[in-house]
Amino acid sequence: MTNPRILAHFQESADLKMKAASVLAQPIEQAIELMFTALSNGNKILACGNGGSAADSQHFAAELVGRFERERLPLPAMALTTDTSILTAVGNDYSYQEIFSKQVQAFGQAGDILLAFSTSGNSGNILAAIEVAHERDMRVVALTGKGGGKIGKILTDADVHICVPHDRTARIQEVHLVSLHCICDGIDVALFGDDA
Amino acid sequence: MTNPRILAHFQESADLKMKAASVLAQPIEQAIELMFTALSNGNKILACGNGGSAADSQHFAAELVGRFERERLPLPAMALTTDTSILTAVGNDYSYQEIFSKQVQAFGQAGDILLAFSTSGNSGNILAAIEVAHERDMRVVALTGKGGGKIGKILTDADVHICVPHDRTARIQEVHLVSLHCICDGIDVALFGDDA
Ligand SMILES: O=P(O)(O)OC[C@@H](O)[C@H]1O[C@H](O)[C@@H](O)[C@@H](O)[C@@H]1O
Ligand SMILES: O=P(O)(O)OC[C@@H](O)[C@H]1O[C@H](O)[C@@H](O)[C@@H](O)[C@@H]1O
Repeated sequence: MTNPRILAHFQESADLKMKAASVLAQPIEQAIELMFTALSNGNKILACGNGGSAADSQHFAAELVGRFERERLPLPAMALTTDTSILTAVGNDYSYQEIFSKQVQAFGQAGDILLAFSTSGNSGNILAAIEVAHERDMRVVALTGKGGGKIGKILTDADVHICVPHDRTARIQEVHLVSLHCICDGIDVALFGDDA
Repeated sequence: MTNPRILAHFQESADLKMKAASVLAQPIEQAIELMFTALSNGNKILACGNGGSAADSQHFAAELVGRFERERLPLPAMALTTDTSILTAVGNDYSYQEIFSKQVQAFGQAGDILLAFSTSGNSGNILAAIEVAHERDMRVVALTGKGGGKIGKILTDADVHICVPHDRTARIQEVHLVSLHCICDGIDVALFGDDA
């Protein structure tokens, strides 16, 4: 009765997690350092993505403003994917390409972090947001896949690139979620130590 | 330089996926059948959850209204987590407990499916939504963890319970995401066959 396709999804997901761990541990650690430094300096994190990656942006903001696993003060992470008045106004009056970059112009300050999710690395509105972040002296943590696409090409050495070694959107999103949880845990550890 | 905690998160996530696959394949298959039947009959899916599970609700709606891996007509899945005017009005005038159940009363019709995400199985607003769904002759697909909590106790034999065998919220959410992708894939296969 059980569906072999379901078992194959779980197997592929588990296999990729084991494969990705060794490749991604270092950039994830760098992302934690970058974000913790920014938060310690009174800066904030702006998160964006499309579709499932919009969900990741909001999931991350929820863990930081609310809590992950330990009680702490709210931390300033803001998803740029939630204000449908802004999204539809900018999409309608300017272009869909600018729905995130206009918000980075509005809210981004030097020292803030842009957390950008794109499984293909090619979404135009994410590329535009990264460009504006660079103009504002913000550093970028990009979670991508499929070789990193155009995003991989515009990141600088000051940015962090967490590029999942896979070509299937669903599998990449699953690794993005574990990476996001690692970052939340790393921020808690930086605040409280690792003995809890 | 790499952080052993990061590797441990990936390892735990991969291990749980392998362990969960055999337990969850059957309820996931039942969920696919239930949803495909509902969609085929012209019914719709209403999705809800809090925090990371709100993100899952919206991720699911995005895959169905937009697309998962194959081009097809938009399918009617609606996240009850996105209209902040409704959420704040009901939260303020009634109670936070009713933010989803009032929407199930408003939008739910006999034959529709409630897709409910709760890692603890205990969130009051999800329990309330399930109760109203039952009153409306809707069937429920519940994704939980931690033994299923109170949700496990109010589901009926006509519902489907995808209960992740783990106690850590982050890990449960990661398995919910793979389960959600399996359901999207299963719906595509039911529409198109499994040869693509
Ligand atoms: O390449 P990305 O930036 O990750 O963008 C993909 C998204 O627009 C969405 O595309 C489809 O709707 C689905 O594959 C979604 O899961 C995905 O998030
Ligand atoms: O028990 P649940 O219904 O899954 O509800 C948990 C949520 O309210 C959120 O709680 C914390 O903020 C975090 O653990 C989130 O990841 C979680 O979604």
